[in-house]
Amino acid sequence: MRMYDIIEKKKHKEILTREEIVFVVDGFTKGEIPDYQMSAFLMAVYFNGMSREETVMLTEAMADSGDKLDLSAINGVKVDKHSTGGVGDKTSLIIGPILASYGVPVAKMSGRGLGHTGGTIDKLESIPGFKTTLTTEQFIENVNTIGMALVGQTANLAPADKKIYALRDVTATVDSEPLIASSIMSKKLAAGADCIVLDVKCGSGAFMKTPGDAASLGRAMVSIGKGAGKKICAVITDMNEPLGRFVGNALEVREVIDALKGGGEERLMEVTYTLAGLMLFGAGKAEDATAGKKMAEEAVINGNALKKFREFVKAQGGDPDITEDEKILPKARFIEPVYFEKDGFLASCKTTEVGMASLILGGGREKKTDEIDMSVGIELQYAIGDRIEKEIPFAFVHGNDKEKIAEAKKRLLEAYTLSDEPVEKRPCVYEIIR
Amino acid sequence: MRMYDIIEKKKHKEILTREEIVFVVDGFTKGEIPDYQMSAFLMAVYFNGMSREETVMLTEAMADSGDKLDLSAINGVKVDKHSTGGVGDKTSLIIGPILASYGVPVAKMSGRGLGHTGGTIDKLESIPGFKTTLTTEQFIENVNTIGMALVGQTANLAPADKKIYALRDVTATVDSEPLIASSIMSKKLAAGADCIVLDVKCGSGAFMKTPGDAASLGRAMVSIGKGAGKKICAVITDMNEPLGRFVGNALEVREVIDALKGGGEERLMEVTYTLAGLMLFGAGKAEDATAGKKMAEEAVINGNALKKFREFVKAQGGDPDITEDEKILPKARFIEPVYFEKDGFLASCKTTEVGMASLILGGGREKKTDEIDMSVGIELQYAIGDRIEKEIPFAFVHGNDKEKIAEAKKRLLEAYTLSDEPVEKRPCVYEIIR
Repeated sequence: MRMYDIIEKKKHKEILTREEIVFVVDGFTKGEIPDYQMSAFLMAVYFNGMSREETVMLTEAMADSGDKLDLSAINGVKVDKHSTGGVGDKTSLIIGPILASYGVPVAKMSGRGLGHTGGTIDKLESIPGFKTTLTTEQFIENVNTIGMALVGQTANLAPADKKIYALRDVTATVDSEPLIASSIMSKKLAAGADCIVLDVKCGSGAFMKTPGDAASLGRAMVSIGKGAGKKICAVITDMNEPLGRFVGNALEVREVIDALKGGGEERLMEVTYTLAGLMLFGAGKAEDATAGKKMAEEAVINGNALKKFREFVKAQGGDPDITEDEKILPKARFIEPVYFEKDGFLASCKTTEVGMASLILGGGREKKTDEIDMSVGIELQYAIGDRIEKEIPFAFVHGNDKEKIAEAKKRLLEAYTLSDEPVEKRPCVYEIIR
Repeated sequence: MRMYDIIEKKKHKEILTREEIVFVVDGFTKGEIPDYQMSAFLMAVYFNGMSREETVMLTEAMADSGDKLDLSAINGVKVDKHSTGGVGDKTSLIIGPILASYGVPVAKMSGRGLGHTGGTIDKLESIPGFKTTLTTEQFIENVNTIGMALVGQTANLAPADKKIYALRDVTATVDSEPLIASSIMSKKLAAGADCIVLDVKCGSGAFMKTPGDAASLGRAMVSIGKGAGKKICAVITDMNEPLGRFVGNALEVREVIDALKGGGEERLMEVTYTLAGLMLFGAGKAEDATAGKKMAEEAVINGNALKKFREFVKAQGGDPDITEDEKILPKARFIEPVYFEKDGFLASCKTTEVGMASLILGGGREKKTDEIDMSVGIELQYAIGDRIEKEIPFAFVHGNDKEKIAEAKKRLLEAYTLSDEPVEKRPCVYEIIR
């Protein structure tokens, strides 16, 4: 078997066999297939796509390239959630306690943030004392006793995907549906859950710009998951503005606590409850997604989810009293209001730019090795469709450096447009793909 | 400027600027752009093509990447010929003396053979004493006094093309019209002729399989040449069987001498005279291509071309008496007849396989470093459309090793098909593109 012939086949839109796909993935991971052949292959895939069967085989080959988590020591149906990434997305931290409060085991490995998107692990580390590394034994014990554990990815999950993604990132071959779908799903398959709920974001802050593109990616991933024998569905949600009111690590933990206390912003809660409902249904705890959604709301109303959150924080070394005293969380030195120069209706948002404004303040990473300032971020007072008055702060910037604050304010204002005419609010959940 | 953005542009079929194309070519040649980005770019070009303007700019950037020959010390209009490569193509060696006999300067740098195709330089080296390396002074003096000199390529012509071609060769990005056209033309532009006649082969022994594909490539190259201010035309010729009767180095020199004596095979001479006629017209020696073709025939009939060939061979250290005594040329130990097992009409030929049969005998190179046996090769007695009788040798194999001869015979017979019905002969010149 020669890589040359496999490139040639894909170039002519022929269907690859499992042996050929495994040859490509293994050969590249082991360094036997050079970068320059792999990038030519990836570009051919960009143009000619992959069939459903090919995409499933690629995903499985990548999932098989490294460790696979064995969650069999955890009791119950293991449900996992994955978001394709956005700005202000803190749903995992609200959903986890909701599920755990119903006895659904939440055993989650999460990533760190890069660029304009934040990461769940970074957010948790803003809680004083919180440890995001646990031994496997501790991890499993926490899940079995408290019902929930959340750690950084330490296992060598899908190393083939990691290496392929790094090459795609420098050869303009990221935006290919089968490559995106297989990349996400290879890690999910290796992470060992029985049931997977995908949150596919679309809009200005997401990789997929339209609900149609996101639905197409969602269908591809659902199909891969089913092909691999998983219970799976995908929810297409809006990312044309940040999700919720806060962007920044400690600020988002504050928002999670507010949400668990029943004070969550409407769009954030709609997405959260929809996802949680599907997960409760997937875990066999609810009759259907609608019943699951209702159960999720109840767990917030009756305080069970908040109680579970406190147990979870404490079990991983954090101070559970953050739920009662927000001053325990890191706070920025300056909180500066941001005003528009005129009145109007908030019409559109370059969501990525809001993430960048937070990054400028020190709340994110440009490079993987950058340190994060947990205290900084953006606090939005309004969402698209709301009426803005120039005398009332549109947002607050939390920062520790006056120069960076000035730059973030400028960037934030430039990210939004105002309209003289009223603007309709967008739906925040477009579609559910099963 | 970033290579990533240029790949992205080409991926979306946007037109690149001259600055961007020069950035790619220079950056890659200098090693500043890595192979893996270049191969992704080349694959994007394979799919999205290049405009005429982009192709001209790419060609010029590659031509500018190394030495450019200065032929200004040679008197007269410098005319160059280029063939896209085939099996048994010895036209350059017949055309050179014809042109020189009319005072058209023939200053030619030629290549060596690789794979199934032969090289003019290899063929000349089968002449005892013949030197294919001359100093630049000697080269120019020979052209100015005798009218003709033919040497191996020593100058560093279009190194960018060399490096890009090596990458295309291992990434399945060879078969892209703008890339093929710019590769050929970059070397031609660097070689400094005023007028270029291209012989674009099509058929089973050529890169382009159909007259239509060859014409398209021809048009692309003519357009590039015109864009660079050259007089240029392209002739689309047949390569569905070897050109002429012989394949092999010394054997082809023998055929060249036969041809210069008026005994050339019909198809070989038709292609030769057509190309020579266009070159005589291009050099301003003939009123039009038809008149030029007639002049070419006359130079053979009146013996001027043969006389010029003897002068040329002598001037480069070879024995001119090869024209009178073919025993001076290297000869194979064994000449074995090849028979078909039944009668029929010669219907089709996998021309590449005939080249491979000669290679097996030792007459060609698999790798650039292989040594060549000058004496071996294939001697065909019939062409497509001819009637074959099983008792009469269809061909002779000239070899020095019985085992290799047996393999070559097998390969040769397998290359051809016979038909019970009469088969029409193909045209050997399809079209002239100006």
